[in-house]
Amino acid sequence: MDPRVREHAETLVDWSARIESGDDVVVHVGEGAHELGVAVASALGERGANLLARYSSAELRRAYMRSHDGRFEEDPAFERALYEQADSVLSLRGSRNTRATADVSDDRRQAYASARQGIREARLATDWVSTVHPTRALAQQAGMSYEAYQEFAYDAILRDWAALAGEMSRLKELLDDGSEVRIRKPGTDLTLDIEGRTAVNSAASVAYDSHNLPSGEVFTAPASATGTVVFDVPMTIRGRRVRDARLTLEDGVVVDVAAAEGEDTLESIVETDSGSRRFGELGVGMNRGIDRVTDQILFDEKMAGTVHLALGRAYDACLPDGETGVDSAVHVDLITDMRDGETSLDIDGEPVQRNGRFRWETGFEE
Amino acid sequence: MDPRVREHAETLVDWSARIESGDDVVVHVGEGAHELGVAVASALGERGANLLARYSSAELRRAYMRSHDGRFEEDPAFERALYEQADSVLSLRGSRNTRATADVSDDRRQAYASARQGIREARLATDWVSTVHPTRALAQQAGMSYEAYQEFAYDAILRDWAALAGEMSRLKELLDDGSEVRIRKPGTDLTLDIEGRTAVNSAASVAYDSHNLPSGEVFTAPASATGTVVFDVPMTIRGRRVRDARLTLEDGVVVDVAAAEGEDTLESIVETDSGSRRFGELGVGMNRGIDRVTDQILFDEKMAGTVHLALGRAYDACLPDGETGVDSAVHVDLITDMRDGETSLDIDGEPVQRNGRFRWETGFEE
Repeated sequence: MDPRVREHAETLVDWSARIESGDDVVVHVGEGAHELGVAVASALGERGANLLARYSSAELRRAYMRSHDGRFEEDPAFERALYEQADSVLSLRGSRNTRATADVSDDRRQAYASARQGIREARLATDWVSTVHPTRALAQQAGMSYEAYQEFAYDAILRDWAALAGEMSRLKELLDDGSEVRIRKPGTDLTLDIEGRTAVNSAASVAYDSHNLPSGEVFTAPASATGTVVFDVPMTIRGRRVRDARLTLEDGVVVDVAAAEGEDTLESIVETDSGSRRFGELGVGMNRGIDRVTDQILFDEKMAGTVHLALGRAYDACLPDGETGVDSAVHVDLITDMRDGETSLDIDGEPVQRNGRFRWETGFEE
Repeated sequence: MDPRVREHAETLVDWSARIESGDDVVVHVGEGAHELGVAVASALGERGANLLARYSSAELRRAYMRSHDGRFEEDPAFERALYEQADSVLSLRGSRNTRATADVSDDRRQAYASARQGIREARLATDWVSTVHPTRALAQQAGMSYEAYQEFAYDAILRDWAALAGEMSRLKELLDDGSEVRIRKPGTDLTLDIEGRTAVNSAASVAYDSHNLPSGEVFTAPASATGTVVFDVPMTIRGRRVRDARLTLEDGVVVDVAAAEGEDTLESIVETDSGSRRFGELGVGMNRGIDRVTDQILFDEKMAGTVHLALGRAYDACLPDGETGVDSAVHVDLITDMRDGETSLDIDGEPVQRNGRFRWETGFEE
């Protein structure tokens, strides 16, 4: 076995999920994630945890959803009981075909998801962690060879997470104490109000309330935003390409939408509801293992030297007790690259990042 | 998809497991059984059942059992809760390597199985059915090409089960009403006492208390046996080859063991405990789709024209209320071929089978 697979499994079980002896652990094994599944099973056995493996197959899901009449039973008892009793749920994603469920209607998916609300909540109440085993299908989606994609994925996953958590805590403190973030680069000048909001140090561990491996970002929920921002990292949103989007906001609300490609898609997102016209999240990518865009949001948004803003729903963890943030049916991340040209991120007028480098990094002053 | 896979799934779901709308169905998908899993998911969706897929991977099991210290927790709550709530459990076996757990010690396996006694009971309390998806590894074990093995397996699985159940009920009645079975062929003359015992019509359906697809046998639990019997169907038992075994019994107890190959293995089985010296089962194979030995007991023992006897444990279903049959840690089936030469199976002196044919079949009198 590739030693990186074994190291991935150890990182997942120890750093991310904090598995201990006697824990009841459900492992979801994706169609292409068998090898990581074997390594995780080995790590769980070594720690004396209990293992129940589920088969997370997109092709089984497609077959089931398509043949069903769509009137799904609400929270079937056996599935609910499993997650209510589980301590941890580890999802090993690893697609063999990222378009395997392309011919399942949105209605059918939505009906299935709605009928499993209680099960979803039981799952999210465990120490859950989601990760990705690099497969050929994911390499293809990223436009990369399999070998190069493996290098890329393991660079992102096999970090010194404790050291990164320490570095990220610096930014978290600045955001927690700050009132206003200002982001500037050519075409962009955006001011965000973050007074009273709490940032999350997303260090790929349940100990940090962070549930994805890899992670590596600090995010908060702005109360308002004003100005113009250009998103120059290309993305696929709802199957449509979006390039060089430019949003203008007044008093927290989007008042103008433009894009070199995919403007219609952005327009329709913004028009979903009142929350989709606002930024629910400001995130700062800090994972230096991620150095290129692969069109997979969970990697792209963590890329060191980028900042992302999400249209729609805010995370509760960022809000003061009793306060509700942006509420919306959508949460769509858009990314801007801070590594090139004259860029700056300031908090309360103090420079925090210049040209993608933080003030505690060498090269900041250049 | 091969239409036989779809037909296999429909037979499993409808004839074998009798799945109905709203049933909570756990499906165990073996490493090589993905395609059958897709077909079963489709059939379950169509019937409005709820599906939870488990990954039944020999390689995950091996990794887990080897790395664990062997002090397994008794009946982990999450796994027990799942099976206690489930209506049906469908096991789709389909190995990619039939020797995948060859380097897990017997002690470790035994410890794992012992710690899951309650879970096993909860699973057996559901409408469970176990079946086999033909894989290359199983073809290899059978000494066959993949295509030929597929033909073989589907001939065994895709029967007219209702018609076979009807035919088997004839033999069941004869056995239920009879007191004595006598089996004769060159080298064999064995008399079995079946007074008061109840035969099981094993028609591959939970409706017949039969839990394997394929099945196709009628079996009962003899109270005693006397005489000599030759087992000329070669088998692999505990990884050892056994050929042309000959057992002699007096008053129900094995008094002599001989074999052209594997005599040691048989001796050690017989010496396990007091029950292992007795025949706990007499079974008559009636599946005409199985026409050759493939060294897989679940197929071999169902082969039409064969009779099998098991050393060790009897099935409770065959015993009168309050009576205990042969009790033993082992249950080892041995098979004799009734199709060649001068063979006969009589019940209470009446001829029932001659040269592998029943008296209701053409060719019986020849």
